[in-house]
Amino acid sequence: MSELLWQKEGVAVDARIQAFLAGDDVLLDREFIAHDIVASAAHARGLVRIGLLTADEGEAICRELDVLAADLASGAFVLDARYEDCHSAIEARLVERLGDTGRKVHTGRSRNDQILVATRLWLKAKLATLRALCIECAQIVLARAADERQPLPGYTHLQRAVVSSTTMWWAGFAEAFIDDAVRAGQALDWIDANPLGTAAGYGVNLALDREFTTAELGFARMQVSPIYAQLSRGKFELAAIEALAAATGDLRRLAWDLSLFTTGEFAFVALPAQYTTGSSIMPNKRNPDLVELMRATHASVAAARTEIEQLLSLPSGYHRDLQYTKGALVHAFGRGLGALELLPGLLRGLQWRPQAIAAAFDDGMYATDRAIELAVAGVPFRDAYRQAAADPLPAAGADPTASLAARVSPGGDAAPGLEILAARLQALKA
Amino acid sequence: MSELLWQKEGVAVDARIQAFLAGDDVLLDREFIAHDIVASAAHARGLVRIGLLTADEGEAICRELDVLAADLASGAFVLDARYEDCHSAIEARLVERLGDTGRKVHTGRSRNDQILVATRLWLKAKLATLRALCIECAQIVLARAADERQPLPGYTHLQRAVVSSTTMWWAGFAEAFIDDAVRAGQALDWIDANPLGTAAGYGVNLALDREFTTAELGFARMQVSPIYAQLSRGKFELAAIEALAAATGDLRRLAWDLSLFTTGEFAFVALPAQYTTGSSIMPNKRNPDLVELMRATHASVAAARTEIEQLLSLPSGYHRDLQYTKGALVHAFGRGLGALELLPGLLRGLQWRPQAIAAAFDDGMYATDRAIELAVAGVPFRDAYRQAAADPLPAAGADPTASLAARVSPGGDAAPGLEILAARLQALKA
Amino acid sequence: MSELLWQKEGVAVDARIQAFLAGDDVLLDREFIAHDIVASAAHARGLVRIGLLTADEGEAICRELDVLAADLASGAFVLDARYEDCHSAIEARLVERLGDTGRKVHTGRSRNDQILVATRLWLKAKLATLRALCIECAQIVLARAADERQPLPGYTHLQRAVVSSTTMWWAGFAEAFIDDAVRAGQALDWIDANPLGTAAGYGVNLALDREFTTAELGFARMQVSPIYAQLSRGKFELAAIEALAAATGDLRRLAWDLSLFTTGEFAFVALPAQYTTGSSIMPNKRNPDLVELMRATHASVAAARTEIEQLLSLPSGYHRDLQYTKGALVHAFGRGLGALELLPGLLRGLQWRPQAIAAAFDDGMYATDRAIELAVAGVPFRDAYRQAAADPLPAAGADPTASLAARVSPGGDAAPGLEILAARLQALKA
Amino acid sequence: MSELLWQKEGVAVDARIQAFLAGDDVLLDREFIAHDIVASAAHARGLVRIGLLTADEGEAICRELDVLAADLASGAFVLDARYEDCHSAIEARLVERLGDTGRKVHTGRSRNDQILVATRLWLKAKLATLRALCIECAQIVLARAADERQPLPGYTHLQRAVVSSTTMWWAGFAEAFIDDAVRAGQALDWIDANPLGTAAGYGVNLALDREFTTAELGFARMQVSPIYAQLSRGKFELAAIEALAAATGDLRRLAWDLSLFTTGEFAFVALPAQYTTGSSIMPNKRNPDLVELMRATHASVAAARTEIEQLLSLPSGYHRDLQYTKGALVHAFGRGLGALELLPGLLRGLQWRPQAIAAAFDDGMYATDRAIELAVAGVPFRDAYRQAAADPLPAAGADPTASLAARVSPGGDAAPGLEILAARLQALKA
Repeated sequence: MSELLWQKEGVAVDARIQAFLAGDDVLLDREFIAHDIVASAAHARGLVRIGLLTADEGEAICRELDVLAADLASGAFVLDARYEDCHSAIEARLVERLGDTGRKVHTGRSRNDQILVATRLWLKAKLATLRALCIECAQIVLARAADERQPLPGYTHLQRAVVSSTTMWWAGFAEAFIDDAVRAGQALDWIDANPLGTAAGYGVNLALDREFTTAELGFARMQVSPIYAQLSRGKFELAAIEALAAATGDLRRLAWDLSLFTTGEFAFVALPAQYTTGSSIMPNKRNPDLVELMRATHASVAAARTEIEQLLSLPSGYHRDLQYTKGALVHAFGRGLGALELLPGLLRGLQWRPQAIAAAFDDGMYATDRAIELAVAGVPFRDAYRQAAADPLPAAGADPTASLAARVSPGGDAAPGLEILAARLQALKA
Repeated sequence: MSELLWQKEGVAVDARIQAFLAGDDVLLDREFIAHDIVASAAHARGLVRIGLLTADEGEAICRELDVLAADLASGAFVLDARYEDCHSAIEARLVERLGDTGRKVHTGRSRNDQILVATRLWLKAKLATLRALCIECAQIVLARAADERQPLPGYTHLQRAVVSSTTMWWAGFAEAFIDDAVRAGQALDWIDANPLGTAAGYGVNLALDREFTTAELGFARMQVSPIYAQLSRGKFELAAIEALAAATGDLRRLAWDLSLFTTGEFAFVALPAQYTTGSSIMPNKRNPDLVELMRATHASVAAARTEIEQLLSLPSGYHRDLQYTKGALVHAFGRGLGALELLPGLLRGLQWRPQAIAAAFDDGMYATDRAIELAVAGVPFRDAYRQAAADPLPAAGADPTASLAARVSPGGDAAPGLEILAARLQALKA
Repeated sequence: MSELLWQKEGVAVDARIQAFLAGDDVLLDREFIAHDIVASAAHARGLVRIGLLTADEGEAICRELDVLAADLASGAFVLDARYEDCHSAIEARLVERLGDTGRKVHTGRSRNDQILVATRLWLKAKLATLRALCIECAQIVLARAADERQPLPGYTHLQRAVVSSTTMWWAGFAEAFIDDAVRAGQALDWIDANPLGTAAGYGVNLALDREFTTAELGFARMQVSPIYAQLSRGKFELAAIEALAAATGDLRRLAWDLSLFTTGEFAFVALPAQYTTGSSIMPNKRNPDLVELMRATHASVAAARTEIEQLLSLPSGYHRDLQYTKGALVHAFGRGLGALELLPGLLRGLQWRPQAIAAAFDDGMYATDRAIELAVAGVPFRDAYRQAAADPLPAAGADPTASLAARVSPGGDAAPGLEILAARLQALKA
Repeated sequence: MSELLWQKEGVAVDARIQAFLAGDDVLLDREFIAHDIVASAAHARGLVRIGLLTADEGEAICRELDVLAADLASGAFVLDARYEDCHSAIEARLVERLGDTGRKVHTGRSRNDQILVATRLWLKAKLATLRALCIECAQIVLARAADERQPLPGYTHLQRAVVSSTTMWWAGFAEAFIDDAVRAGQALDWIDANPLGTAAGYGVNLALDREFTTAELGFARMQVSPIYAQLSRGKFELAAIEALAAATGDLRRLAWDLSLFTTGEFAFVALPAQYTTGSSIMPNKRNPDLVELMRATHASVAAARTEIEQLLSLPSGYHRDLQYTKGALVHAFGRGLGALELLPGLLRGLQWRPQAIAAAFDDGMYATDRAIELAVAGVPFRDAYRQAAADPLPAAGADPTASLAARVSPGGDAAPGLEILAARLQALKA
């Protein structure tokens, strides 16, 4: 590893201890280094504005940062265990290429605000992706809701309850993903605040132009208080993870439905073949592994939340404990967005199996319709309820299509309100 | 307990099983019954609009619901183990007073949408309280930030790091509480959707006027899909708890600071006497118990989140598992808002102890100032860093006030940006 | 509330603050007071042994404690909001009846070790109950495993995989509950250590006879270090909750099986009628609510764990944060044991539905048998696998009973090893 | 990647889907492959015993497995993305070297029992390491408890409470680590059961000699039921993580003490220089980063628990969700044991700073001694308490050493019971 920036003479270094302190930081920093480079350039330009760097120095630094970004993108530069973290790697490169000028870029900042701003930019990018994926999923399922109007059993307690429909099922998840997109947007707005320039949590004796770097980096506002910049580490990460968890929580329920619907017993749904796998011992199997991992994804997101939340029981100010927020973040978004990225294809490709569906209706599923018919005819609901329990069939008989045609309450199959959902979705895309 | 609505003849009832099923539901429903009454009246008025109830019947029902609400408020009616839950209690009262007319109020709804709408109204009220408390706290600490400009050691890793100030400390929590208020508002907006009229999750064969009840109950929008209404149970509760957790997370860090600052070793802060307690064995003690329970509060909020999140691993549709979301909600908001309600008094009453604070500065706390002075004078930062480590005092010497006067980066003591925070706070109150 | 023991003159008491500090402590203490009384008597006897109380005083105190215990049991005494907690209630009663002698019982102890020992005794009792319930369940299911040898589909990924049997299904849960009983016993052993006599965490200047109270209260060992007595608060509670969670985790999986097996689509199982409930809107429904609450129970246990674990991020020594461990404990064991107590009846009463089960076999479920037959005949397994995928039927054809008869690997239906499990169970009951 | 074992003709493979399904499995399997090799050899020997392999075939397979193990250890073989997982890698090697004979090793087992047994062996090794580390730490701190008898303030609520001592502080953690070693041993015993031979969860039509492989692999017992073998996946992992969490929970509290004791305000402790680090902006700092990461470690362990627990909400039988238990396990034990491995050095090297300690005593810390003196002299404790509050000094005056000499309750400084703890520790090492 490169020389430690803060190393003091005369203090022996214990390799095991250094390895423990470093952990997998430098590998995790592969996620953050591109953002660190962008923020470093903004910091350098800010230093030019207040005369801490000459224009030439600033340009040289920004130019070398661009080269480094390009080397990273092309694979010519790989962030690895030669470096303590992404910050050291960037500085090492600048010093190698620019000598003393490279050494000046750290003026007025700390690794504390450096990692804060890199993480903040990363989080914004991830939340934007989350939002886009939720919108994409909503769009797909809303289209299928409009296209596929066929009966489907409706369950409560996993017991057959009333006649439902594919339209209603798709519409339910459409509204879910719309709300998830809204939530991702809220989280993005909430964390859209620039911590760069807060140094180690107490500011510095330099008139840094923080309004400039805020605009330069595209933040909606400045995070004013340096103490709050530190307090927000972990707090903002949790908000982002929670927005992700809203979506993976819905994904968990969707995957549960598909897990049931693809059993031999329900058999309502066929998955596209590439979404299934085989068994190493049972030649007969085609298993919905992907759906199961989608279901399990929420657990990983929840784990990341636990990890960050537990370590935040701390006084104000920076503590090294916060290092462990990084791995948790990468775990949550790696798993969460990884699963959501495969969802559009699955949603587009799944097929209903009408014959198996048709076999799953029974007379009891009309009893609610019947009870309400009686109630409308003037029978008090509680009495209507008892009559329908004994004799469940409504006027139209045991006809799923008739039952759906009568489901006129807003949101029911006969008035599914898809146009309301479409308008909400449209507003999100504006 | 009153007769179970859904009881069938010939099925023996096992008292232990019924007790387990009921749990503490009826006691928890004391939290929700007032909202259930309001929503029941809206449902009744909606039934009048579509001709399911006559105007007279609707008026009678609403009048009796008003009486019940008044009886609840006065204590003349107490919701207790005579009833299965708040829904049965309301219906029992209406039937007792209005006979068959009372029986009609359940037409077109299920206990599923009934508890959903009552919980939703309750959550909205709690989030509004949360938001108001965060605003109140922000206001208090922002005022103290402006009033009390004195040095305070700044820590990282709990080690003395640089000179900070009471202004900066207060401002940090001001920005925290402002963000927490924003978050509470976001959560409130997100869940502000009317589930009434979605029945058991599949709508009904009645043209319920859901736009009317949405407006009547003050919801911002209709929750369109009945299936999504069920999917949102637990999901919306989690969002509310997470907004609360953002605030209790900051409270945890604030309480940690106060816990340290009130030790004999730091001794920076004196708490108002009524915020401390004594010991049963140690006559000498005055303990910051309240601060410690404030610190512990977050754990209760986190527990509620765990409880709800874990039980949501379910297919779509209603399941009885969801009953356990209620107790978790009441636990989280009971503890969380209970702690936050006492915070304004504590924030107003705590006193700094300048003598102990003054004793806690040492020369090393000026080394960062010195390093930057050198850097500004043209010494590359990494070299400046080494010089300052050896000889930490800046031009102004070991003077905390001078150090603060030079802290001109935006957010630093010399440019704390309180006016920016005040403007954000003002916007929240608009 | 009674006068606070530690109240100092001249300090105003704020009712809201006192209410927050007290929380629901006194109600929760209803769980612990009987154990507190027992431990108080042991402490009094211990004080007699070292001459701090006369024999007469000791007897008087023990006699009044017996009376109080009897009053509690009969309902003549109710612990309520007149008292700060159970400790104050006991002391108030002793002082009321015995004057100054009553005041002496607190000599040499603190509320810290008082609540520790009461909780410890409570935990031991709960773990013993947990262990007994697991043994009872294991016994029931092991008996059914022996009695009911019929085919049942075996699933992986919820897909039909191979022929399984009711014997194998029951035996799986038998081994689960045996292990859960072992685990409860391990936890009980681990926490079976007496904290009484450690005072506020640093001992006292009295030669308390802690070996005596350890024996008197039936503890297996003394918790030696007063500092560790405090460190173990929360830690031991977590161990107990985790042992409970092992059982409720298995209950969750069992309940999931039953939830599936009682759907209309699987229909393998009929629940006893008293274990099902009806719907308020759907007259046709019989719902497995109890099974669903059993499934949800684990979430409550997990929540309690979160609550305690999160608040334990503390330095050594007592902190008021620990008060919140009590409610979490009561929540976990209330819900957890409540569910497990109803399980024996459910396990005894559930009925298989052979006709529906028979309809759920398909040819692919024999492919593994066939592949192994081929492998035994010398075909390399990977080739056998491919042949069986194309032509799955083994020599015996599509016969579930033949498939089970050939399942001779230990644990398989033809060699289920019930006698091994029975021997393990017997050893637990010894 | 090598050909997928279960691949069927005509099914297109989607690279993104395969990448998601694989995840980081193959990298995680580096942890497990050595155990998989050992278990594969036992399985092969078992197949020889029942005539499924000839003696020559068995020997050839075991010889090649030994070669592979040696290649792994030397780095000549690296498990990487060429393989789907460790199971495929092993089989690929055997087929490459032995042709059809290599193909036979999978006869009678599934990847399900293969990963179960490899993970089980890994868990046993990790728990043995955990136990050994706890014993090592207990030994170190017990020795220091005996060697260093000096006063140290005792705190409750972080407020100075009574005189404590370094002996008592060390003894507290000695008893903690002894209990943690016991707990690790309990968990090890509990999971010490052989799942090999349970195939995909339903056994096979082969008379596998499971008693033989149980003995061969050093398991204490056979896991009898194949269904339970699947039910135990995740369950046993949780038990191991919980045992680890008991230790990391104590580590968290120890690290908190050290974090406080190394502040400038307490300053009771000096850490060895190699256990501290510097700052990138503040030249003056020596920070206890290692202590802080030790404190944070518990959060990672807790996260792993959350991850596994949440995904276990499943019916019985194997589900792909369980794949995510692996990464969680590696995360928990990697972080947890990583931190504990550095603890012995830290415990050995930390130095007390007697001067700062001496400055932290005040008169109130003797009030409890005084109150008990009065009580012994016949003053009822509650009255003694009030007198001592006013006039706290005991007969010996404000003398910490005298206070400790009088602390004769078992576990107190004058009777610390180190010999009891030493005997318990000795028993563990037997």
